[in-house]
Amino acid sequence: MKNNYYAVIMAGGVGSRFWPMSTSNFPKQFHDMLGAGQSLIQRTFERINDLVPSENILIATNKRYEDLVLEQLSKTTKNQLLLEPAMRNTAPCILYAALKIYNQNPDGVMLVAPSDHWIDDEAEFTRNIETSYKACSKSDILMTLGIQPDSPNTGYGYIQFNKDETEIKKVKNFTEKPNLETAKEFISSGDYLWNAGIFVWSVKSIIKAFKNSLPEMIDILDDENNVYNSDFEDDFINTNYAKCENISIDFGIMEKAENVHVLPVDFGWNDLGTWGSLYNKLEKDSEENATVGGQTIFRDANGNMIRTQNGKKVVIQGLKDYIVVEKDDVLLICPKKDEQDIKQITSEVRGTFGEDFV
Amino acid sequence: MKNNYYAVIMAGGVGSRFWPMSTSNFPKQFHDMLGAGQSLIQRTFERINDLVPSENILIATNKRYEDLVLEQLSKTTKNQLLLEPAMRNTAPCILYAALKIYNQNPDGVMLVAPSDHWIDDEAEFTRNIETSYKACSKSDILMTLGIQPDSPNTGYGYIQFNKDETEIKKVKNFTEKPNLETAKEFISSGDYLWNAGIFVWSVKSIIKAFKNSLPEMIDILDDENNVYNSDFEDDFINTNYAKCENISIDFGIMEKAENVHVLPVDFGWNDLGTWGSLYNKLEKDSEENATVGGQTIFRDANGNMIRTQNGKKVVIQGLKDYIVVEKDDVLLICPKKDEQDIKQITSEVRGTFGEDFV
Repeated sequence: MKNNYYAVIMAGGVGSRFWPMSTSNFPKQFHDMLGAGQSLIQRTFERINDLVPSENILIATNKRYEDLVLEQLSKTTKNQLLLEPAMRNTAPCILYAALKIYNQNPDGVMLVAPSDHWIDDEAEFTRNIETSYKACSKSDILMTLGIQPDSPNTGYGYIQFNKDETEIKKVKNFTEKPNLETAKEFISSGDYLWNAGIFVWSVKSIIKAFKNSLPEMIDILDDENNVYNSDFEDDFINTNYAKCENISIDFGIMEKAENVHVLPVDFGWNDLGTWGSLYNKLEKDSEENATVGGQTIFRDANGNMIRTQNGKKVVIQGLKDYIVVEKDDVLLICPKKDEQDIKQITSEVRGTFGEDFV
Repeated sequence: MKNNYYAVIMAGGVGSRFWPMSTSNFPKQFHDMLGAGQSLIQRTFERINDLVPSENILIATNKRYEDLVLEQLSKTTKNQLLLEPAMRNTAPCILYAALKIYNQNPDGVMLVAPSDHWIDDEAEFTRNIETSYKACSKSDILMTLGIQPDSPNTGYGYIQFNKDETEIKKVKNFTEKPNLETAKEFISSGDYLWNAGIFVWSVKSIIKAFKNSLPEMIDILDDENNVYNSDFEDDFINTNYAKCENISIDFGIMEKAENVHVLPVDFGWNDLGTWGSLYNKLEKDSEENATVGGQTIFRDANGNMIRTQNGKKVVIQGLKDYIVVEKDDVLLICPKKDEQDIKQITSEVRGTFGEDFV
């Protein structure tokens, strides 16, 4: 019997907030950011592979990372790669995946998952995804996983759900990054969850949703000649993909569709969005210092995160709450509180040191 | 006619206060500490070579640095090296040099100079040394060069001189590292100079001084069989050198001799004794930041010294008055004010990371 479970791992990002560890030639998802022995995308693949056959897992990424993906994911073949010839946000990429899966198996249900997040309880994740697959196999619904918030974080999108229902709840409303006051209200109301960008739906349901909300994108990518999974797929995508609107799945589909549901989950999620969120996940010494890669002697130092190449020996004296990152020919020292400046720093680095260092 | 001018460059130190740039395998004097294009010992050799024929310049160093010296000083041959088989401070080493020179030329006058100091005005240095050579050729005196002090530094030895004399002044007294109050009195009295460890004397005078003050050392090293500059020199030194007392020339000879004179000099001397004194010599940007080796983008940062491998690209944000040193597999970040802790840090590094990293 054909396995109906599919997944697409979103791996096209550049992760510039993790410069200099993450660079456009070797972005965050391909790094072992936590020193766990696997890169984030390898870990993501393994986690999904617990439930989904490896040949049913697609990887959406930029053309330039083709070799990196094939090198890091040994169970993946070229036909599983969705190589975006241009950056067009998540909607075109997800439609491409849905059409490619539909061509293989019109009864497929698909998971969409970021390649660069961290999940503590992987068994719980698997249970949640299986619940979602089953629901989407039976019903024409679009599902998102909603993270139980633990703080009024203004960096995430929020999902308001209908309290009166059972396990899977109907979504009332999406709110993009709110201000702090609003975020606090959301948290205290008890009917808001964080949007983690993890989605499940049947390929039929998502294609239908695109027909309703983004019909011009369907016109561009839904080819009648069965181009997907054929020798003509690459040419077709190279010719047409860039014509698609640059729009996110949240804005283009989820905020407009009427059949969106959320499964509240609590599997220890961390989007590893900044050095600070990575720091929160790392093992720390009694002075709250964390080291990944090398070894550090801390003297009168606390709250620091040191990320170096493997084997580097580091001595830190008299430093408090700093990020120290050393990689190949680059060294960054920056207060943790200034982590939002790192995108701006990369612009300055590009201007001063050149493209090769960013 | 035989040239009577000789010199011995003292190059046996380990420079542990400059860790991790300076290590026991590759000490300070072999580094281009200021990014001037030459190592300190190369610069010292060239400076002396303006006055002294290269074949008359001896290098006193530890056996383990033999290859480094020959590699860096291309005008030097094995016969010019005084290879100490054991660390015995400066007195035995200077007596060894004096006896070796005496064997070649009993009329020799010799300069003793550290290998790892910095001198701004090298022409003035040459004039001062020539003045000293001439004085020591004519008179049985031991000369030291006295640096005009510009602060009550408690890290140096002080030389009190007789104000009433002419260019070359009789020394009244030596004082090792005084406390701050005493140092301030010295400075305001106007008859004190810093002892820079730069000496000039005839080989006859210094051998006579050893006979008076350290006769047992003469008994060990003054061999009647003309062993110096022969095939037996190495064996003789290897057998006997370690028997010598571990004592400095200052304590063993200079503080006891009656015929010590000082030439006050002002050629822009810096002993490059600590990262702070190196920092003082470096070119700095408008925010008083200095970089040697790599290139740095400073953001909201001032008073820092960054020393990295060549080509390293560094970004420093929000740091004030720190030393950042990166070399091969080691990185040190330490406040400038804590530079005296670096010796202690090296002990901790030895214990934690092992001998290879110190």
